[in-house]
Amino acid sequence: MDQIFRQARTYSGWRDAEVSDVLLEAIYDLAKMGPTSANCSPMRVLFLRSKEAKERLRPALDAGNVDKTMAAPATAIVAYDLEFYEQLPTLFPHTDARGWFAGKAAKIEETAQRNGSLQGAYLIIAARALGIDCGPMSGFDRAKVDAEFFAGTAWRSNFLCNLGHGDPERLHPRSPRLEFDAACRLL
Amino acid sequence: MDQIFRQARTYSGWRDAEVSDVLLEAIYDLAKMGPTSANCSPMRVLFLRSKEAKERLRPALDAGNVDKTMAAPATAIVAYDLEFYEQLPTLFPHTDARGWFAGKAAKIEETAQRNGSLQGAYLIIAARALGIDCGPMSGFDRAKVDAEFFAGTAWRSNFLCNLGHGDPERLHPRSPRLEFDAACRLL
Repeated sequence: MDQIFRQARTYSGWRDAEVSDVLLEAIYDLAKMGPTSANCSPMRVLFLRSKEAKERLRPALDAGNVDKTMAAPATAIVAYDLEFYEQLPTLFPHTDARGWFAGKAAKIEETAQRNGSLQGAYLIIAARALGIDCGPMSGFDRAKVDAEFFAGTAWRSNFLCNLGHGDPERLHPRSPRLEFDAACRLL
Repeated sequence: MDQIFRQARTYSGWRDAEVSDVLLEAIYDLAKMGPTSANCSPMRVLFLRSKEAKERLRPALDAGNVDKTMAAPATAIVAYDLEFYEQLPTLFPHTDARGWFAGKAAKIEETAQRNGSLQGAYLIIAARALGIDCGPMSGFDRAKVDAEFFAGTAWRSNFLCNLGHGDPERLHPRSPRLEFDAACRLL
């Protein structure tokens, strides 16, 4: 619990240590086990590791996110597939779940966003559980990322997440969270 | 990792064992530490424990979700606050983050949905880490829930999550997940 929640931090500075492809695969293989609605599993991930791939991302980044992203060993474009429901005959085979979505754009979008975000959180937690620090970010131009990396596909970017071994010397003090009574009610 | 991902399951059947208020608070206190964009923390949670509260939820549930929800020791209405940005002077004090959102309905909605869903996933993982089983659900009428529980507020329901001690005898075999090569790409 300390490793995944209490002592984990969002990092901007990175130590010079690679994240192997085997480890990226292990992170996904853990995250994929988290629950989604009707097992719809809409998250898709593009892992950028090479300098060339990072340079393609650079023009889409908010100014404050450029240096840390370029320095990170890997950056995940956490996306979702608007055609996720085509996988439902395999993922949820005991009924016609595909029919719940086909042709229903608003329901597709809502389901992909909600469940793709749940899975994005599982990815962050899985990375931390495996000893990899995260730097998730929303500060980028989604349309530019989609045009650059996902043109002609049904994948859409959701958020970015730098991955690596964080440099604790570049952390700021932790920001406060809302107390239980400010965010929760009991009935 | 087994407890939060590999062996954890979505439960429909519940053993007759309460979930105390202290434990619900502990679940939130762990989940709140997970990262959100600019620490915006839009998730709000209404925990339903009493028979009366559950009965108010019943008319909004899809038929297939009624029995298991009525039987669960607690049901969380995982929601988000469309006025989350009013907390930013406290949560992200070093700049005027409130100004990034005030008056921008589309950005507010997108940020609340994405980060409220990330936090919903943290809540599921936190519950499991503390030994509580989850039954998350999207099968309900969000407008009905909002009218019944959140009228006159800026809270909006996102998904439901039953909480308790799951009955493993009522589990089905685990559904398959997408393999790495089906969901991820390396660049």
